[in-house]
Amino acid sequence: MTVHLVGAGPGDPGLITAKGLELVRSCDVLVYDRLVAPELVGEAPADALRIGREPLRQDAVNELLVAYGRRGLTVVRLKGGDPFVFGRGGEEALALAEADVAFEVVPGVSSLSSVPAAAGIPVTHRGISSQITVAAGHDPEALDYDALAVAPGTLVLFMALAGLPEIARRLIAHGRPPDTPAAVISSGTTDAQELAAAPLAEIAEAAAGLEPPALVVVGEVVALSERLGRQAPLLAH
Amino acid sequence: MTVHLVGAGPGDPGLITAKGLELVRSCDVLVYDRLVAPELVGEAPADALRIGREPLRQDAVNELLVAYGRRGLTVVRLKGGDPFVFGRGGEEALALAEADVAFEVVPGVSSLSSVPAAAGIPVTHRGISSQITVAAGHDPEALDYDALAVAPGTLVLFMALAGLPEIARRLIAHGRPPDTPAAVISSGTTDAQELAAAPLAEIAEAAAGLEPPALVVVGEVVALSERLGRQAPLLAH
Repeated sequence: MTVHLVGAGPGDPGLITAKGLELVRSCDVLVYDRLVAPELVGEAPADALRIGREPLRQDAVNELLVAYGRRGLTVVRLKGGDPFVFGRGGEEALALAEADVAFEVVPGVSSLSSVPAAAGIPVTHRGISSQITVAAGHDPEALDYDALAVAPGTLVLFMALAGLPEIARRLIAHGRPPDTPAAVISSGTTDAQELAAAPLAEIAEAAAGLEPPALVVVGEVVALSERLGRQAPLLAH
Repeated sequence: MTVHLVGAGPGDPGLITAKGLELVRSCDVLVYDRLVAPELVGEAPADALRIGREPLRQDAVNELLVAYGRRGLTVVRLKGGDPFVFGRGGEEALALAEADVAFEVVPGVSSLSSVPAAAGIPVTHRGISSQITVAAGHDPEALDYDALAVAPGTLVLFMALAGLPEIARRLIAHGRPPDTPAAVISSGTTDAQELAAAPLAEIAEAAAGLEPPALVVVGEVVALSERLGRQAPLLAH
């Protein structure tokens, strides 16, 4: 009788929450993102309505959630990562609140730290990094390079693969040392995971062959992946 | 035959990952933090060895994980939130790697976005915040206020309740507007959750009665909680 905005996690279907999985298994309607693991879509009841979000504009998704929510159906809106970390969950939540449709948010494991972890990179580490700056890089012009260049600790960029040559160049121009360790992780936590690691000045070239979805990590913690990533795939399957 | 560093999530026991729960249910040894939900500790097999981490120093925890890992037992190290977001998981992972004990990291839902979500606060929201700065506030002297005051978007502080009067004062002195919306969420996602919301200049006073664990959120997104938090507890139980 509610719309549930559920985080599916970073890619590995085992990383959805117990509560989220239970909701998927009992829903009437499942509205899911393209990047959600097919195994999770497959967990919905056989007679549930499954709607891929991809061809729809955000307004249409909002309307759909409101419409099915009003019919008293159990609706699960399954989103990659966490609904509130670059997930536009807030927009869907506001549309539901304004339409007086009951909803809840079930958080998910964000790529933010789980994708670096899968490559042996802890985003915080005592004595190395006690701060994380998280930004979206789909529009390199929109970033505040003055602030990003001086931010201590680890920098994590979502949706920054296409803009990486410009972003890396401007971070260096604004003061980040060119030899800062950097990494790009593509399809993190899945069987298709790939890693490129290089100093910031060379990371765009090193990552040239990778495909989205990808996460960019910049900072001294990246160097730990040599000691932690070598051990074994951290997320064994 | 491996040590699994598992994130238990922010408090609500339903927010552990499906994979993490499965590991807890099949472990030989469970080493758990004080803040982990008792329901999750209760999911371990009846004959599993359960070891509370609390009285031990970090070195002793590392040694314990290495020792049990070497015996070929299935060891779950269950940590609050995510092991790599202020969880000292990197230190434990390094100790295991250096001792040649196989391990994996199973990420968890960090408080970072899930605790604000439970209070109706999306840490990112289109047109309001596209950047998150995450820091630890247990030592207010250690923070870089110049960087924090100019960082655009949302500021999330872990372990900052005790130092909040000083932190808020110095953020304002370094340029954050005193009327920036701010919130403190205590025991987020659990039945004991409490919220204090006030402008930055008054947040320390407003939060004076709250107990740790608490998360501090500063930024315009906090104002959305009036529209999203009112709807219903976002994390209904």
